[in-house]
Amino acid sequence: MTNTATLLISCPDRKGLVAAIANFLYTYDANILHADQHQDEAENLFLMRVEWDLADFKLDMNAFSAAFQPIAERFCMDWRIKLSSRKFRMAIFVSRYDHCLVDLLHRWQSGELQCDIPLIISNHEDCRRHADFYGIPYYVIPVGGNNKREAEAQQRALLEEHGVDLIVLARYMQVLSAEFCAAYPRRIINIHHSFLPAFDGAKPYHRAHERGVKLIGATGHYVTEVLDDGPIIEQGVIRVSHRDTIDDLIQKGRDLERMVLSRSLRWHLDHRILVCGKKTVIFD
Amino acid sequence: MTNTATLLISCPDRKGLVAAIANFLYTYDANILHADQHQDEAENLFLMRVEWDLADFKLDMNAFSAAFQPIAERFCMDWRIKLSSRKFRMAIFVSRYDHCLVDLLHRWQSGELQCDIPLIISNHEDCRRHADFYGIPYYVIPVGGNNKREAEAQQRALLEEHGVDLIVLARYMQVLSAEFCAAYPRRIINIHHSFLPAFDGAKPYHRAHERGVKLIGATGHYVTEVLDDGPIIEQGVIRVSHRDTIDDLIQKGRDLERMVLSRSLRWHLDHRILVCGKKTVIFD
Amino acid sequence: MTNTATLLISCPDRKGLVAAIANFLYTYDANILHADQHQDEAENLFLMRVEWDLADFKLDMNAFSAAFQPIAERFCMDWRIKLSSRKFRMAIFVSRYDHCLVDLLHRWQSGELQCDIPLIISNHEDCRRHADFYGIPYYVIPVGGNNKREAEAQQRALLEEHGVDLIVLARYMQVLSAEFCAAYPRRIINIHHSFLPAFDGAKPYHRAHERGVKLIGATGHYVTEVLDDGPIIEQGVIRVSHRDTIDDLIQKGRDLERMVLSRSLRWHLDHRILVCGKKTVIFD
Amino acid sequence: MTNTATLLISCPDRKGLVAAIANFLYTYDANILHADQHQDEAENLFLMRVEWDLADFKLDMNAFSAAFQPIAERFCMDWRIKLSSRKFRMAIFVSRYDHCLVDLLHRWQSGELQCDIPLIISNHEDCRRHADFYGIPYYVIPVGGNNKREAEAQQRALLEEHGVDLIVLARYMQVLSAEFCAAYPRRIINIHHSFLPAFDGAKPYHRAHERGVKLIGATGHYVTEVLDDGPIIEQGVIRVSHRDTIDDLIQKGRDLERMVLSRSLRWHLDHRILVCGKKTVIFD
Repeated sequence: MTNTATLLISCPDRKGLVAAIANFLYTYDANILHADQHQDEAENLFLMRVEWDLADFKLDMNAFSAAFQPIAERFCMDWRIKLSSRKFRMAIFVSRYDHCLVDLLHRWQSGELQCDIPLIISNHEDCRRHADFYGIPYYVIPVGGNNKREAEAQQRALLEEHGVDLIVLARYMQVLSAEFCAAYPRRIINIHHSFLPAFDGAKPYHRAHERGVKLIGATGHYVTEVLDDGPIIEQGVIRVSHRDTIDDLIQKGRDLERMVLSRSLRWHLDHRILVCGKKTVIFD
Repeated sequence: MTNTATLLISCPDRKGLVAAIANFLYTYDANILHADQHQDEAENLFLMRVEWDLADFKLDMNAFSAAFQPIAERFCMDWRIKLSSRKFRMAIFVSRYDHCLVDLLHRWQSGELQCDIPLIISNHEDCRRHADFYGIPYYVIPVGGNNKREAEAQQRALLEEHGVDLIVLARYMQVLSAEFCAAYPRRIINIHHSFLPAFDGAKPYHRAHERGVKLIGATGHYVTEVLDDGPIIEQGVIRVSHRDTIDDLIQKGRDLERMVLSRSLRWHLDHRILVCGKKTVIFD
Repeated sequence: MTNTATLLISCPDRKGLVAAIANFLYTYDANILHADQHQDEAENLFLMRVEWDLADFKLDMNAFSAAFQPIAERFCMDWRIKLSSRKFRMAIFVSRYDHCLVDLLHRWQSGELQCDIPLIISNHEDCRRHADFYGIPYYVIPVGGNNKREAEAQQRALLEEHGVDLIVLARYMQVLSAEFCAAYPRRIINIHHSFLPAFDGAKPYHRAHERGVKLIGATGHYVTEVLDDGPIIEQGVIRVSHRDTIDDLIQKGRDLERMVLSRSLRWHLDHRILVCGKKTVIFD
Repeated sequence: MTNTATLLISCPDRKGLVAAIANFLYTYDANILHADQHQDEAENLFLMRVEWDLADFKLDMNAFSAAFQPIAERFCMDWRIKLSSRKFRMAIFVSRYDHCLVDLLHRWQSGELQCDIPLIISNHEDCRRHADFYGIPYYVIPVGGNNKREAEAQQRALLEEHGVDLIVLARYMQVLSAEFCAAYPRRIINIHHSFLPAFDGAKPYHRAHERGVKLIGATGHYVTEVLDDGPIIEQGVIRVSHRDTIDDLIQKGRDLERMVLSRSLRWHLDHRILVCGKKTVIFD
């Protein structure tokens, strides 16, 4: 793997932005691999992703922040820098359905998902054998009745202990509290089994079947405190017909969920997503 | 074109149904071209579409009803018979956007849509030249403020006068009254520019843009008195991204609207649709 | 699971066929669950699939053949009967790529694929741990240089010993001999990683990349003695762009391969496929 | 419409490229609207598209070439500049099938295609009425037997006379000579009715039907002297089944052809395409 740095920038759109950034990188002899930008007219925002090879880069990355600060201030940038050598530490939350979990773990082992997975958290024992197969610690924290606050405290302690900076809800069937969501802004990715905003909330396949839709969908999105309302990262659909029972919908949907979730996740891991208001900009 | 008859049946599911129908047709030497059936478990309904060549058929179609009645009664059938020689008489309603209208007229002239189009009704003059080009009478009935009741009376008089038995709303931007809808049950087809049930009602492209969805859709459906709530016939989606403005969505959506509307319409014209509760069964 | 029988019929198209079959089933009180038929005009063939519940069926299935024979002879039918209680015994062939194998095994354990898997055969050790996890015997038979004849003899002995009646090539990177293919007519399913007939043969992703296509595909098909030329069961495509490297194509393609192979396989297991000349009829 | 300039660049990849271009534009106070770039690793090429608002631009566009030349030379650039005020002059070639022609003309009149259409050339009279409706001169030049050389001479005289710089083959059923193709490099766009490279050449729908594919496609591409072998701009597919006759394939294919051709064309008109070897880079 090439050792790279990725700079993500969001700021008010102004002339001279690209020149300032390009000059800064050229000064230190950066070999730019990818550069993408987007102007959001409604918000008058300039968004940019630039990735360069660190092999020839003449600036020590520890000094990057200080060196880039003058430009960042001049243009009022909201920015962050990501090194490919510094992997995300990702926790997977799962309940009883194992198809997304198994898919993520296999992709991870195949090298498709560049991250560490220090732990899996579940409210059930069911998926432990998959965690064991891939050698990942599996913690069961039952959730029910009145213990949500307590359960979340346990979960957050585990996350902190393992230095987690990204959470994937792989069909985790519990709603997280507003406090929990607020503690991980844009760092919790959920897969919802409908094409949002249709069928948000519970039992989307049943409601899709009842309504008689001809397509079912899945949506990968960041979790915010309003259920199924966070910025959408990716969506997919698959055709269904009157011949499909609810069980058929659930089965067809599993394929969608796997693909949409893993694609959403990969974009996050590759630092390809910027959130702009309620929307995502995907630099693919 | 082969001269055919199509029998559409809906009834409680019981043993012996297929045998009874097949024997009846065989008695009169029918050469069956297509036969499709579907069991709806939730409603315990049996639905069937059977189409046969009339060339060798030994029963005069004027006598069909009397001959079939005993079987229909025995199985409590809701049934209808359609002859390919008897074309639908279809009215098109349109406002200012002409893309669906132009598409339908061209398909009609190419022989893709087997129907007569005795008239086009609009609340604006804009599309008249297309009607003229294809030689179809074009009536303008302005709708606004308080004249909806009056306008609908004029529309219905025209429809009756022209023997219309199918209405297509080709991006007609007015909401029809409950009375109007009730007068044409399952005989009004609308194209809605979203993947229903998401973004029902007004300005779906604007709301889709605001929500940041990654797919936009279109839905062909039968019109009922509840807005955008009728049985769905067909749906399609197309991918969009953060780079797409509202105008881009509108433009991409036009392609979808044309395809989904014409496909919905073709299935209706070919007698391929049975409505079962709030859903459609499409015998394609 | 409902205990059902499925009758698959292929014969010259003639009047009275449906009536004869429906009457036969009605005589023994069959509760028909699904019935589909198709007329192939070019070949003048009638193809039918009918599935019924065995709960009330008044004919002992051991006597079915004798009872149905007169009808079969009268209409010159090529027919077979399949019982849901009699599962396919499926062997999986795999080389080093494990993504299709892992996907099939997980679907199998989830109950999505109704079959037994008595063994997995590979020319490499790599995938053994997955076989172990799911508790399926794993046999390694190296293939190379001049030992193909010998290797196939070993493979066929194993298949016979385990009573295998269906073989899935889950990215098995060896070409089977004509003799091997002939021994399992329409009982070997392969996934080819292109939209056939484009890019048949070796290295389709590389050639797709070189040609600059905007879509890549995958094809599930029956294996015949001509490479990548057997009847196509299912195909899928996914969008690619100039930004995609060969590695990106390979990764995107894996998702396609999994979906298309498992769908092809499920249709076979559910007795939904009839082969008609070089084509398949899929009764979905 | 905003008055913009678009700069398209292709050159060997080197450090400092983006900085040099960004600085040049910033010097003249360009308000950059869109900037996209791509590195082709195999060819070690850097490709860029940058579009800016001319409202505040301090450099007279007549002087642009001279001002930009030093940078272009330093980086060995193959470059061109396009002004939104300078529309393409596009000729449409058509035979008897009118669906692509009608679609293009309607999109053009709706403002979806920003170009002038000074003439339509056909080898048949059939489509004249559509040309008349949209007020575009229609020339019939019969092609057959031995007169191709002569016919092409007439065609080229007309194209020259009308200052044509883009030719669209809207299902024009004649093969252009190598000389003709060479005279309009990357300026002839064709729609081929298959997913190339499958079914290149004649009668693709018939061959697709015969092969029993489950998807049919359409391909928009630049025409080169080798038939159906030019750089692919866009592709689409649609699902078909055993129930579809050749006529059904042709009908379904028409929808695809219209969409794929118009999309290919729009990208060309918006200066979004760079050709790199045998492939296209689409800056969407």
